[in-house]
Amino acid sequence: MAREIGPDRVQTGDAIPPRHQTDWSGVAPVRPLALVRPRSTEEVSAVLRLCSAHRVPVVPQGGLTGLAGAAVPCADAIALSLDRMNAIESLDAAAATITVQAGATLEAVQQAAAAHGLLFGVDLGARGSCQIGGNLATNAGGNGVLQFGMMREQTLGLEVVMADGSVLPMLRPMIKNNTGYDLKQFFIGAEGTLGVITRAVLRLHPAPRARATTLVALPDFDAALALLGRLQARFPGAVAAFELMWRGFVETSLRWQKLREPFEAAHPFVALVDVVGDDEAVLRDALEGILGDAMEDGITADAAIAQSHAQAQAFWKIREATAELPVHMHPPINLDVSLPMRAIGRFAEACRAAFDARWPAHHSLFFGHVGDSNLHVTTDGISIGGEAEELERIVYAQVAAFGGSVSAEHGIGLHKKPYLGASRTPAELAVMRAIKQALDPHHLLNPGKVFDK
Amino acid sequence: MAREIGPDRVQTGDAIPPRHQTDWSGVAPVRPLALVRPRSTEEVSAVLRLCSAHRVPVVPQGGLTGLAGAAVPCADAIALSLDRMNAIESLDAAAATITVQAGATLEAVQQAAAAHGLLFGVDLGARGSCQIGGNLATNAGGNGVLQFGMMREQTLGLEVVMADGSVLPMLRPMIKNNTGYDLKQFFIGAEGTLGVITRAVLRLHPAPRARATTLVALPDFDAALALLGRLQARFPGAVAAFELMWRGFVETSLRWQKLREPFEAAHPFVALVDVVGDDEAVLRDALEGILGDAMEDGITADAAIAQSHAQAQAFWKIREATAELPVHMHPPINLDVSLPMRAIGRFAEACRAAFDARWPAHHSLFFGHVGDSNLHVTTDGISIGGEAEELERIVYAQVAAFGGSVSAEHGIGLHKKPYLGASRTPAELAVMRAIKQALDPHHLLNPGKVFDK
Repeated sequence: MAREIGPDRVQTGDAIPPRHQTDWSGVAPVRPLALVRPRSTEEVSAVLRLCSAHRVPVVPQGGLTGLAGAAVPCADAIALSLDRMNAIESLDAAAATITVQAGATLEAVQQAAAAHGLLFGVDLGARGSCQIGGNLATNAGGNGVLQFGMMREQTLGLEVVMADGSVLPMLRPMIKNNTGYDLKQFFIGAEGTLGVITRAVLRLHPAPRARATTLVALPDFDAALALLGRLQARFPGAVAAFELMWRGFVETSLRWQKLREPFEAAHPFVALVDVVGDDEAVLRDALEGILGDAMEDGITADAAIAQSHAQAQAFWKIREATAELPVHMHPPINLDVSLPMRAIGRFAEACRAAFDARWPAHHSLFFGHVGDSNLHVTTDGISIGGEAEELERIVYAQVAAFGGSVSAEHGIGLHKKPYLGASRTPAELAVMRAIKQALDPHHLLNPGKVFDK
Repeated sequence: MAREIGPDRVQTGDAIPPRHQTDWSGVAPVRPLALVRPRSTEEVSAVLRLCSAHRVPVVPQGGLTGLAGAAVPCADAIALSLDRMNAIESLDAAAATITVQAGATLEAVQQAAAAHGLLFGVDLGARGSCQIGGNLATNAGGNGVLQFGMMREQTLGLEVVMADGSVLPMLRPMIKNNTGYDLKQFFIGAEGTLGVITRAVLRLHPAPRARATTLVALPDFDAALALLGRLQARFPGAVAAFELMWRGFVETSLRWQKLREPFEAAHPFVALVDVVGDDEAVLRDALEGILGDAMEDGITADAAIAQSHAQAQAFWKIREATAELPVHMHPPINLDVSLPMRAIGRFAEACRAAFDARWPAHHSLFFGHVGDSNLHVTTDGISIGGEAEELERIVYAQVAAFGGSVSAEHGIGLHKKPYLGASRTPAELAVMRAIKQALDPHHLLNPGKVFDK
């Protein structure tokens, strides 16, 4: 391989940096056969051709911030890092599109867009480290989904290298393109098991000129849904965040961060809402009207509209307690599920009741991007290992009962493989395997991820 | 088959109505072996199991309004019409989702949404006849794409019956669901060649309370793009239409419909724009501001904002001359292509120059959903047959040269098969064939559509 693409592209043995041996999932590090860091699509193609000829498996790597273990190497595979292919190749402001290499960080894309008064629709905490290729391979979600959709919805074109080294140059920048199967869809969210994404054409959006933030106290879950419906009717396509926090989350966040109660009383739910538009005063007026009506109708119990950027940040600080989870929990067990929107409240109650029955001293937090049907559950006081697995079984059985998804946005990787059957039928899994067999007949691309052979 | 699913489900010979023997593409009618009209997913599954066992091909049929011939039967196949599976099964207003059977018309879905103050994001001229299953199988576009995307973007869940009769019940209504390959994407836009879509869960949107319409005269194509950019920055997610008409189109429309020139002078381009929001007066004020600035900056030459619904309809009448194409042209040759947005102006000039050189007396019209990178070209004065094929070769060669798509929204079907290679590389076509082989190994589903074996 060093001969084909140059010795400076290949590292082996002790020269392989530890950071390439695992990801943020906590899966134990594995040293691959070699770490290969190509500089171009042609080099990626050469590597895959060679690996295909010698039947050497390949584990593609992006920013290694995944939480499901999809980028953890195997000992008999090479790790293929896209980190040197990190160029922002071009930006077309008139068409609001950007063409980037897979190794560009999410933040680099966001900054390139911002320099033209535009916005990239995906944002998440790992923005400085995670790479576009990984965001695509895992169909990343994050903070912008309510307004702009997942990574899939941002994607106009993809360049993909197949297991045999052939290149699919599907980089046409048109929204409308019905010429046979929309192949790029096959690779988004496939976690590197069907092809290696090397470049992408992504959509951009106008950056909003104004934003207003409000914190709303709610008596119950159905009230939260009712409020969301009213907000979306009043601000179509402009509700940028609707984060719901159960009381336990709010209480814990205030305690950890030594913050004051935002309202005079404690309320069962607090929603944090951002709306965007052209003029902040207009947005605040409109929010006041909606919240006043909602209060009269018994939907909201209390509400505060941020009157300054600093106050908006203070509201967001309550939600951002999640950054403190690893500090205060021992360690936290994080779950990322989605459910039919109406069922989220009952699902959370069912989970909490089951946890309380099994682990009376446990501590669990419920919060999430409820407008996206996404709920995060974090628990403490349950030991890692057998008990954590028991907890997962409890949660995923509830997910199956409520018709939800065991992975809203983190993917399957290694970690959630045992539970895939809770959200997918045997017939669906059989079709996935048939597609894998068709596109990667020797099972060389990220073997053992998503499902076993 | 009559035994398995009941004799009233099956028609043969002369009993097969002519309307099931072709579609709106103009392809010559073909009488299938039988017309089968199942009433449930179970019956569709039984039909496919039987056909698979006896190796009888199946041509799925929706509303038969397709323009590329994808639903035209083959003589050795059964035609499988979904028209009896037309129920609107449920609508969840809080979650803004609707669950429907494949045979429901687009209009029925629109009406069900409207009854709850909601809107379905896809709209097109054939709304009263076309069916959701066909809209999904062709990834329909139409009037709402700029704001809401194609049919794909409206789809949360799909139920699909595979060639062997197995059922994929992928009807979970969550936006976020990263559990393995997003299989539903494989069937959207596959024109019935990979599976038969039987039910869908679709997203709905709040219906806008107000709409404002403006007609804008523009000096050149780049000015149109500049205006679109300004509109999208000012009304993010709320520019509902941006239809561009070249002078020839405007002139022809006015003549056919005996309408007056909308501006004092004739201008090279006219854009018809709809923006939506909460308050009509506010929208009109904002439009006035933008158009005033654009006039000062030399982007627009003239503009009129509709002051009433009747005036908005009068503006739209100019664009809707397309309904008159078959009356006034002998017959019209319609092309539906997409291009990188910046290239559309130069592409249109190149096509017109080539047409003028070859057919000095021809008449061609250029117009389209330019905000979606979609251009329609209609020509008259060129005889059907060899000359029409020559015209298509000219246009699609330009599409290839400009990196565009030979089918923006109509699909490939039978009609555009010869030109698929202008927008797809051999490696891409090989992957499409591998997928087809994996999911329909006996090539029983809509054989000969999209590509030959």
